[in-house]
Amino acid sequence: MGKQEIRYAAKVSLDTPPPEQKVLHNRWHPDIPFAGTIKNGEVVKIECLDWTGGQIGNNDSADDVRDVDLTKIHYLTGPFEIETAEPGDVLVVEIQDVQPLQEQPWGFTGIFSKENGGGFLDEIYPKPAKAIWDFEGIFCSSRHIPGVRFAGLIHPGILGCAPSPEVLETWNTREADLISAYKDHYKPVAQPPEPQNVHAGTASDEVKQKVGKEGARTIPGRPEHGGNCDIKNLSRGSKVYLPVHVKGAKFSVGDLHFSQGDGEISFCGAIEMAGVITLKFTVMKDGVAQLGMKSPIYIPGPVEPQFGPGRMLYFEGFSVDEHGKQHYLDATVAYRQTCLRVIEYLKRYGYDDYQIYLLLSCAPIQGHIAGIVDVPNACTTIGLPMDIFDFDIRPETKAEKRELGSCAVASS
Amino acid sequence: MGKQEIRYAAKVSLDTPPPEQKVLHNRWHPDIPFAGTIKNGEVVKIECLDWTGGQIGNNDSADDVRDVDLTKIHYLTGPFEIETAEPGDVLVVEIQDVQPLQEQPWGFTGIFSKENGGGFLDEIYPKPAKAIWDFEGIFCSSRHIPGVRFAGLIHPGILGCAPSPEVLETWNTREADLISAYKDHYKPVAQPPEPQNVHAGTASDEVKQKVGKEGARTIPGRPEHGGNCDIKNLSRGSKVYLPVHVKGAKFSVGDLHFSQGDGEISFCGAIEMAGVITLKFTVMKDGVAQLGMKSPIYIPGPVEPQFGPGRMLYFEGFSVDEHGKQHYLDATVAYRQTCLRVIEYLKRYGYDDYQIYLLLSCAPIQGHIAGIVDVPNACTTIGLPMDIFDFDIRPETKAEKRELGSCAVASS
Amino acid sequence: MGKQEIRYAAKVSLDTPPPEQKVLHNRWHPDIPFAGTIKNGEVVKIECLDWTGGQIGNNDSADDVRDVDLTKIHYLTGPFEIETAEPGDVLVVEIQDVQPLQEQPWGFTGIFSKENGGGFLDEIYPKPAKAIWDFEGIFCSSRHIPGVRFAGLIHPGILGCAPSPEVLETWNTREADLISAYKDHYKPVAQPPEPQNVHAGTASDEVKQKVGKEGARTIPGRPEHGGNCDIKNLSRGSKVYLPVHVKGAKFSVGDLHFSQGDGEISFCGAIEMAGVITLKFTVMKDGVAQLGMKSPIYIPGPVEPQFGPGRMLYFEGFSVDEHGKQHYLDATVAYRQTCLRVIEYLKRYGYDDYQIYLLLSCAPIQGHIAGIVDVPNACTTIGLPMDIFDFDIRPETKAEKRELGSCAVASS
Amino acid sequence: MGKQEIRYAAKVSLDTPPPEQKVLHNRWHPDIPFAGTIKNGEVVKIECLDWTGGQIGNNDSADDVRDVDLTKIHYLTGPFEIETAEPGDVLVVEIQDVQPLQEQPWGFTGIFSKENGGGFLDEIYPKPAKAIWDFEGIFCSSRHIPGVRFAGLIHPGILGCAPSPEVLETWNTREADLISAYKDHYKPVAQPPEPQNVHAGTASDEVKQKVGKEGARTIPGRPEHGGNCDIKNLSRGSKVYLPVHVKGAKFSVGDLHFSQGDGEISFCGAIEMAGVITLKFTVMKDGVAQLGMKSPIYIPGPVEPQFGPGRMLYFEGFSVDEHGKQHYLDATVAYRQTCLRVIEYLKRYGYDDYQIYLLLSCAPIQGHIAGIVDVPNACTTIGLPMDIFDFDIRPETKAEKRELGSCAVASS
Repeated sequence: MGKQEIRYAAKVSLDTPPPEQKVLHNRWHPDIPFAGTIKNGEVVKIECLDWTGGQIGNNDSADDVRDVDLTKIHYLTGPFEIETAEPGDVLVVEIQDVQPLQEQPWGFTGIFSKENGGGFLDEIYPKPAKAIWDFEGIFCSSRHIPGVRFAGLIHPGILGCAPSPEVLETWNTREADLISAYKDHYKPVAQPPEPQNVHAGTASDEVKQKVGKEGARTIPGRPEHGGNCDIKNLSRGSKVYLPVHVKGAKFSVGDLHFSQGDGEISFCGAIEMAGVITLKFTVMKDGVAQLGMKSPIYIPGPVEPQFGPGRMLYFEGFSVDEHGKQHYLDATVAYRQTCLRVIEYLKRYGYDDYQIYLLLSCAPIQGHIAGIVDVPNACTTIGLPMDIFDFDIRPETKAEKRELGSCAVASS
Repeated sequence: MGKQEIRYAAKVSLDTPPPEQKVLHNRWHPDIPFAGTIKNGEVVKIECLDWTGGQIGNNDSADDVRDVDLTKIHYLTGPFEIETAEPGDVLVVEIQDVQPLQEQPWGFTGIFSKENGGGFLDEIYPKPAKAIWDFEGIFCSSRHIPGVRFAGLIHPGILGCAPSPEVLETWNTREADLISAYKDHYKPVAQPPEPQNVHAGTASDEVKQKVGKEGARTIPGRPEHGGNCDIKNLSRGSKVYLPVHVKGAKFSVGDLHFSQGDGEISFCGAIEMAGVITLKFTVMKDGVAQLGMKSPIYIPGPVEPQFGPGRMLYFEGFSVDEHGKQHYLDATVAYRQTCLRVIEYLKRYGYDDYQIYLLLSCAPIQGHIAGIVDVPNACTTIGLPMDIFDFDIRPETKAEKRELGSCAVASS
Repeated sequence: MGKQEIRYAAKVSLDTPPPEQKVLHNRWHPDIPFAGTIKNGEVVKIECLDWTGGQIGNNDSADDVRDVDLTKIHYLTGPFEIETAEPGDVLVVEIQDVQPLQEQPWGFTGIFSKENGGGFLDEIYPKPAKAIWDFEGIFCSSRHIPGVRFAGLIHPGILGCAPSPEVLETWNTREADLISAYKDHYKPVAQPPEPQNVHAGTASDEVKQKVGKEGARTIPGRPEHGGNCDIKNLSRGSKVYLPVHVKGAKFSVGDLHFSQGDGEISFCGAIEMAGVITLKFTVMKDGVAQLGMKSPIYIPGPVEPQFGPGRMLYFEGFSVDEHGKQHYLDATVAYRQTCLRVIEYLKRYGYDDYQIYLLLSCAPIQGHIAGIVDVPNACTTIGLPMDIFDFDIRPETKAEKRELGSCAVASS
Repeated sequence: MGKQEIRYAAKVSLDTPPPEQKVLHNRWHPDIPFAGTIKNGEVVKIECLDWTGGQIGNNDSADDVRDVDLTKIHYLTGPFEIETAEPGDVLVVEIQDVQPLQEQPWGFTGIFSKENGGGFLDEIYPKPAKAIWDFEGIFCSSRHIPGVRFAGLIHPGILGCAPSPEVLETWNTREADLISAYKDHYKPVAQPPEPQNVHAGTASDEVKQKVGKEGARTIPGRPEHGGNCDIKNLSRGSKVYLPVHVKGAKFSVGDLHFSQGDGEISFCGAIEMAGVITLKFTVMKDGVAQLGMKSPIYIPGPVEPQFGPGRMLYFEGFSVDEHGKQHYLDATVAYRQTCLRVIEYLKRYGYDDYQIYLLLSCAPIQGHIAGIVDVPNACTTIGLPMDIFDFDIRPETKAEKRELGSCAVASS
């Protein structure tokens, strides 16, 4: 029988500008043409660019992060036609493997400027920053955050099937309502369709204009299809069940992460990378009705890095904000407080706030809803694996300040 | 050397009304007298009532849940003087064991009426309901939710040190502000001090009146001391680091849970039980400053029930509510949606909504903050261990309706 | 419905000599009378003495270990009649809990003298020694082996159903053959029936004499029924499937261990204790044929202490003995070498050989058959959990000699 | 800074006969010339052939297994000079990744004929057999053993440093002694040096003759250097500490396994494959003395496939052989019995004995030394992960015979 390599359904180039690559697109729209066809039951490899399409370099300045163009992001590979898939079916996608591109064994984590994207803690930490991570097989480490090293829980940040016109209309309407309700917010709360820098694969000019005008932006995950859910344990070996909204499914994938913490708090918070993902596609006919499905579900893979529970240090946070104001069962406020508690703890070792903010975004921290009913306080917890540090961070061990350098910052 | 039993620092009675038991109290206040003294470094056993002080019976009616008196809850055992503890110290508490009382090998999970306490899903499920759980060694099962059985991740819902007068003042002020801000909310958003049914241990009448007037209610966990944090993996073998605010620490513990899901969503959502906890106390001098501590931290114990990741079924939820309204990065909304996704899924097997609501509250579900930066959607996930069911709930296996009875409901 | 305590099927006394306690016996024989009756499907508690019946004291001398009377050991509780059980059935026993007796929160590990019992390394370490372990909830530590502390993987060393006369005859014959084949061995290789100190429960004198003459000794586990299998993960939550050889099953249990390492190498190598076990019994009719069963099988419980694999230090051993002699695929020789490798490694920290020999016997070490086909060498491994030590034993960290005291030794 | 690919220290060819490839060798000898140089601290990739050098094909006949030439096996890649390594040092090797060759995503497991190599059960199962495994990312499955699928715990079967002349002499002497002691054994118990088909890399004819005459065969692992230890959890992320015996270490690696069970019982029992391994080398000066090292030690990686303990089915085996003969504490006999117990259990589902023998060899079974002191019986256990089967193998579920095909067998 001989050799049988797995087929590449799409390859990307690190040297060609993303807008010129036909297998990519950067909006969700039912009219973006198929980038290829995959059989029901087939296993294929799909290459993906990093989510910025190469805007961030392996260097020691955060100027590129500061200046990132957010109209040009989330170059997804696809959409693929999955044979036999029809609206109402569920597309079962098994993630058989994810690997960085062999020729680019590094990734990055960024904190975006409050003025350009921001992040979960941007009111406290408004400046851009960056860390470069070098991959060493299953491990990664960063010259910008010395003293830590861990195995990646590698996964795609984005996968999903295209919306139907009706679903797309729903998205655009409800997000427009939010935008208008929050028009005085300190930063945009959602991104409406944006024609600038739209990439619609091999679409005709006419379709491309339509996609620019109507196409949903890729940043939010959305209940109807998943999309940019940024779930850290949707990793190798996982099986995800995705609702199909259009004929052929129009499946896309991208935004690969070498690792991510629960919340991906700095926004560009995972270890972002270009890579290749091996996927098996199976169509479950009429699956949406059978599973009573409104949002994707998944079963994680069996090979997560294992830290014994006794090697995790947990921090508690409550919905009282940093100004002392009591919020009502607000898990978002509580999680922000929990993050701040970790930062305070780790600063004692010599890290600066931005290094820890970056680390919390990409290291395999466990972010839990602990209690959400004890009025008025929501309680969330963050579990920090102590074994990712090469020094002892147990509370019993006296903290000594170390020389731990700094992350990459912007020139101004 | 012979026998050396561990000392009981306090015992409770299942037959004496809680207000008559001197080792109990039900408010947080610095003036509640010590219920006993424990040495720095000592290991003791402490018995605790269930959180309602016995208001709920082992029967098939939820009338007791409907009629629960919430001014009489959270009978905590303590406060104990921990020798040498001073404000600014950290009290390190190792939870060496937690066991149900041998003479009462059962517990309960309740859904409170929307009119009396409510819960996380009370706008959708307003009625009272109840499940009784029988303990079989490390396992539990319920005649009210057939088809499930699991090992408990047993833990105290509440532990903490008394507030100082200043901390207490902070609590009362900020919660009063919230109450006044939410005065039109459909239910109380916080509980102000309440003299009715106050229990202040062995306090004089004068002190008891003061405690009634000023004492903080026990329902919310609070950042300054932990308290009712309801953290499911703060279980056997855990070590928790608690800030000390008054001389002698005035440590209290109660609200023992045989098991709980992340969020404890039905409010009386854990498997509530009376039991005995074995604790070791160690004072870390000046620990608050040394650890840079604003809220408690902890290290979980090594013996959590182990479900391989491939045996968990994860549900995704987003901050678009059940009316289709888009919320801005609201993890609380997202978590409510995630809960609803699990309910929809499990209903296919024949459970009714209230059974699942109860189950989600007390089974060892994993509730994660997944993504909290992808504007405007927060994404949370719930991991449901498939091995707690005695039938196969994998998506691939066709769901068949079963005869699964019902939980205990109220007579009207 | 009210309170429902679990029934005790048998209680033991720490103050009455074991031979006078009617619920005990110390031989395997079908004629030992029932000590009680348990329903098919019932859950009961059963108390057990430590395996020596109280011969070992909580003190700092190993004289009691040196002088132990091996004709008086393994006082098992039982045998119990399990209703409906018949030969050919399988008795399914769920171990719902195991706890030390509350009034005796300590246990012991012993190294027997080469002249009296010996152990796996007795040719190298011939002297008696002892360590006392104090229980602190789920944890244990020993004044005789400072620097270590761990959670117990608590389990019964012995459980099984009585042999039929035919099975008993098989045992006696094949072991007598071995004894005669090894008559020049440096120590007894098996124990034939021994009338001295036989305890047959409530048997008449006539039956007791028969039991003394024919009854199988309790030290070896045997394929037909399990017995003294000393399996460390047959712990809380486990379900074990035992062949039934006589009407009513005649189930017995004893030799409780707070913890044990794979191999239980020092022979009295677990942390031996008196305690109480909670068991559920279910009869699987005709199970032996259905399961094709020749020896017991089991499913471990879900709550083993969890050490991440990256927190284990593994040692390799091969079937070349300490004299340089090559043995042919001999896993026993290889495992002895692996033990010696651990001893050499840990001695660098200041432990003496006997302390480590004791520790290896009772700490939760993983003993694996690694390779058993690469002629002529068998390779076995031992995984040592690094987190049981309160100092850093990673190879990278320079080993410093510490003052680590000594275990209890004999007066001569 | 740009792209930085990891350097390949050696590549192999699937199309060139192994004896013609200069980076390979198939004996252990200090005089085999270096195949390349690696810096202390460097990370490199090294390609390896499968252990037979391509003798086994992806087909449905076991003729190639029957006819395998065992003088031509274990083509190792190396030996590499590790800069600064001297005798007495320890070479620390971190296994950062192991992957199959992308162009050959399959492997094989074989049962060798009793007449040609044999295996652990060859007296019972003397015939050759084979299973081909297809790799699907982290998973594998076989058309020859339907109904199972699992994630690989991928690892090198062989790694080690070259022996010094003195070490080599020790090996040859003690194995020769064994051979002469067992000269009437039914099959060879060890392989003496063999000039036929020796491959000594780029050695001169003179050196090659010397290597043929003296060079140690590669099949046994040996205590002094590890070698063919076949340890299943020496996988990705592991760190192994190897004694150095010659200047430059002369490190070699090969015999990559996609997966293996404890014992690798069928001899060619892992899922054998060609692949690439990413290694980091660090020299620990004077490490042998510092670590008191006589045999290699290692720390496993953090990403083993996780099966909860409650999803493992354990089988017990004792040192009474299949003829009813009692052996004295013989773990090898006990382990063979344990294997037979698994075969009996799984046959009930329709597998034939050879399929299970193959499966036991390569699936991630846990093989434990349970008790090794309860004279005269050694007890070993095998834990079989139930989740590798796509049907329910719990004892409670009635076993139904299925149509499960057969493995590849020989034509005669």
